[in-house]
Amino acid sequence: MQPVLIAGQWRPSHAAAHFQSENPATRSRLPDEYPVSAWQDCNEALGAAAAAADVMRRLPSEQIAAFLERFAERIEANKDALVAMAHAETALPVTPRLADVEFPRTTGQLRQAAAAAREGSWAMATIDTKNNIRSVLAPLGPIAVFGPNNFPFAFNSAAGGDFAAAIAAGNPVIAKANTSHPGTTRIFAEAAFDAVQATDLPSAAVQLLYRTSHEDGERLVSDPRLGATAYTGSRTAGLALKAAADRAGKPIYLELSSVNPVVILPGAIQSRATELVNEFTTSCLMGAGQFCTNPGMVIVFASAESEAWIKAVVAKFRASPDGTLLSKGVESSLATSITKLRAGGANLLTGDDAGSGQGYCRKNTLLAIQGEQFLQNPELFQTEAFGNASLFVTVRDVAEAQGVLAHLEGNLTGCIYSDQDGADEDIYAALAPILRERVGRLLNDKMPTGVAVSPAMNHGGPFPATGHPGFTAVGIPASLRRFAALQCYDNVRAHRLPPALQDRNPNGRMWRLVDGCWTKDNAQTTS
Amino acid sequence: MQPVLIAGQWRPSHAAAHFQSENPATRSRLPDEYPVSAWQDCNEALGAAAAAADVMRRLPSEQIAAFLERFAERIEANKDALVAMAHAETALPVTPRLADVEFPRTTGQLRQAAAAAREGSWAMATIDTKNNIRSVLAPLGPIAVFGPNNFPFAFNSAAGGDFAAAIAAGNPVIAKANTSHPGTTRIFAEAAFDAVQATDLPSAAVQLLYRTSHEDGERLVSDPRLGATAYTGSRTAGLALKAAADRAGKPIYLELSSVNPVVILPGAIQSRATELVNEFTTSCLMGAGQFCTNPGMVIVFASAESEAWIKAVVAKFRASPDGTLLSKGVESSLATSITKLRAGGANLLTGDDAGSGQGYCRKNTLLAIQGEQFLQNPELFQTEAFGNASLFVTVRDVAEAQGVLAHLEGNLTGCIYSDQDGADEDIYAALAPILRERVGRLLNDKMPTGVAVSPAMNHGGPFPATGHPGFTAVGIPASLRRFAALQCYDNVRAHRLPPALQDRNPNGRMWRLVDGCWTKDNAQTTS
Repeated sequence: MQPVLIAGQWRPSHAAAHFQSENPATRSRLPDEYPVSAWQDCNEALGAAAAAADVMRRLPSEQIAAFLERFAERIEANKDALVAMAHAETALPVTPRLADVEFPRTTGQLRQAAAAAREGSWAMATIDTKNNIRSVLAPLGPIAVFGPNNFPFAFNSAAGGDFAAAIAAGNPVIAKANTSHPGTTRIFAEAAFDAVQATDLPSAAVQLLYRTSHEDGERLVSDPRLGATAYTGSRTAGLALKAAADRAGKPIYLELSSVNPVVILPGAIQSRATELVNEFTTSCLMGAGQFCTNPGMVIVFASAESEAWIKAVVAKFRASPDGTLLSKGVESSLATSITKLRAGGANLLTGDDAGSGQGYCRKNTLLAIQGEQFLQNPELFQTEAFGNASLFVTVRDVAEAQGVLAHLEGNLTGCIYSDQDGADEDIYAALAPILRERVGRLLNDKMPTGVAVSPAMNHGGPFPATGHPGFTAVGIPASLRRFAALQCYDNVRAHRLPPALQDRNPNGRMWRLVDGCWTKDNAQTTS
Repeated sequence: MQPVLIAGQWRPSHAAAHFQSENPATRSRLPDEYPVSAWQDCNEALGAAAAAADVMRRLPSEQIAAFLERFAERIEANKDALVAMAHAETALPVTPRLADVEFPRTTGQLRQAAAAAREGSWAMATIDTKNNIRSVLAPLGPIAVFGPNNFPFAFNSAAGGDFAAAIAAGNPVIAKANTSHPGTTRIFAEAAFDAVQATDLPSAAVQLLYRTSHEDGERLVSDPRLGATAYTGSRTAGLALKAAADRAGKPIYLELSSVNPVVILPGAIQSRATELVNEFTTSCLMGAGQFCTNPGMVIVFASAESEAWIKAVVAKFRASPDGTLLSKGVESSLATSITKLRAGGANLLTGDDAGSGQGYCRKNTLLAIQGEQFLQNPELFQTEAFGNASLFVTVRDVAEAQGVLAHLEGNLTGCIYSDQDGADEDIYAALAPILRERVGRLLNDKMPTGVAVSPAMNHGGPFPATGHPGFTAVGIPASLRRFAALQCYDNVRAHRLPPALQDRNPNGRMWRLVDGCWTKDNAQTTS
């Protein structure tokens, strides 16, 4: 059985049970056995992480940055092994997806996080020279990271966006592997631990557990020694963790389900129907639709053009290969969600059958309802069908479209496509404000599946897409701020201040808010 | 019975019951009767607030700023009535406290909030010109504000810091009056509503309820129409509201109890004992100790000097008048907390008896324990005794002091006093890092009771002092960010962007993060 990484040791787990991952393309078990940790593992990891946190919060940010960069290099040195393992565990295509897209994104994120840690502007150091009051965002303590199944690299709990943000903010990470790709996570953790040693971080800066009971997971996220939790995954499991963390007053950042409504206004269909068929199909079927931002609901206006457009999409879905799903669980929950939507009255246009592949697979699926059906049961029709499926909602008019949008739950994204000549402008103005308040990211004329690592990105949104509408999981520096506490120094003697709050800008490159102005200059204390 | 303010009407409450406030100085009921609202009032206020929120989020920030300034003027025009009513309802001294300190602080906060709204920098507009991704903090929706008993002006639910921040961020407020000063809150709400009308805000921008059942309070903070809640008050009531809000995924910002540890190092007592007696006594007895940041625990090192110092404080406490407490509830909970501390083994040095005043009053109280007693029951000895009382903890040595600090819950503040010549520097270095992680604001050589309205202030801290360690209730612009959602615009056409995210800086004075640099310049889109 594979060892866990606790307190700087790859050591046997206090295992309550074990599990194996599967190759979703062949439905066959992979050879390695991974432990389901008992509480003792969690307890030891928490103790070691708390001690590491006390060391890390005093390390120069240069050392944190060096770790992140060294880790990126170690990942690159292990690229072949990572790609092979991730392909075996997820069936995501080696190329372009794993090797050419997700891999460089992952190392890119780590390097962006390193740059942010080194510069230090993320911490929003604020200096009031007149009152000698100063504040800065400071490391929060050990961060538990629960990674999702659908990004074995870029959101891996031991290498992805949350990991990079938590470390860059100066915190140790307890990575809880996604159980569908434990081997990939193990290779990352090995590389991370190499980098920990090479850059002299505390040895428990990165720890790895593969799996726990639900009960121990809830205990972990509410433990007094923990700083916060980042969780990406299913709504049910996420809300159970949130309830436990909330009771203990521990921050938990969630990235849960989202149907990502796409509204296609009449002028867009009239002017570029074929383009939109291709754009939508590519976005919806890419990675077999297994993206948090997959367009799971498309709202169109009733017309002959819309009907023709939907028919063209159906034809395109039928002609497209059925991608392999990440696991048996994804396959069955996709089927269950589609059954639920159909039971509620959605009309099947294509799909909802065993897929053509030999792995976990469902046929590309499209469903359709009328706006009035949606309005009769808005909750049911927002059931996320995670995978290669989407639901058309045909609305009669603008008022009905407004009604549908007004009933949306919180989503990560919402898109509106419109014509280029202004014909749709009034409808846009009638709909956009309603959609705006229900999504974290509003797009124009663009599918939601690309999530750029931009300082302006919001990969977040209103509950239940996430747990708090003010934070983003993607985008540096903002994602770092989730893992920080605001610490104020009032009349603290100059030599006792952390470097970021001393009059002298510690690296000459850190943005600080000094007496109301953002500046890289030194603060001038008049005394 | 006094009417409630709902949807722009002062109208009779759907009252389940009614209550009167008391003059704490005379223990006599004040004449006015106020309603305990039934759910119907809350429901109507929520509906009106949601409609107002949709209007407010599109208003020019200039109009929001004008409202806040007009409101400050209206408050000034009603100063005599406000001071008289607040004095009658709280027994806080007319001067300097109410008229000369808290009153100008309140109007000053409103004007600072107006300036922040007008400038717009608080919203952290972020522009990535290369990817055409832009994001900004935007109004969250109706904010329920529950004000505390101890600041009838500066934290009043219809005029104080949370109110000002919520409005400045562009949200309507549903004010829930503190039941110990409903009349003061009514005068504020009248002035606010005048200002609402004068500046043409939606009429439900400010609404007022006086009281609800606990059940309806929980329903209010978890209602889908609500954006968030700000609550300042007791831990029990706050945690009940938090549980309800958390279940619904609604942000709730809490400012709960805190014992605000003060550590006095040996050199400080040796070099300025008398100064410290006065400083501590003033801070602890001001306002009869009824401050969130009241120094409720003082840690000193065992020595003859410390014993003498404590004796001098005891003498000073005995010689100081017993202030009037805010209510019968404060009086009884102070007595209960002191009884609990004594039952746990704390030694009574002075007080714990009926006070000498004719109003609600307890004698100035000092208790003492040894560090080892604290360590045997750290939870009990952190019982907040809200009022004119404090607990000395005498530690044997640095290790014991470290142990005591390590067992502290989250607090708003922590102070360390040390000598001026460096003799205490090693002890400081041994203790400060432990204290630092357990408080929102770390002070040197200064009592915690002054909370400056500074951009660098943190009136917050780790749970259970607050509900989230990243936010502050005092300090502009940071306090506004609690009431905002991060909204991203991805590829959105230029003319559809909110003003803050267009290339042109809308007022030339807004700080924006453009391509990684904080600037007031226009963004330069290369296309």
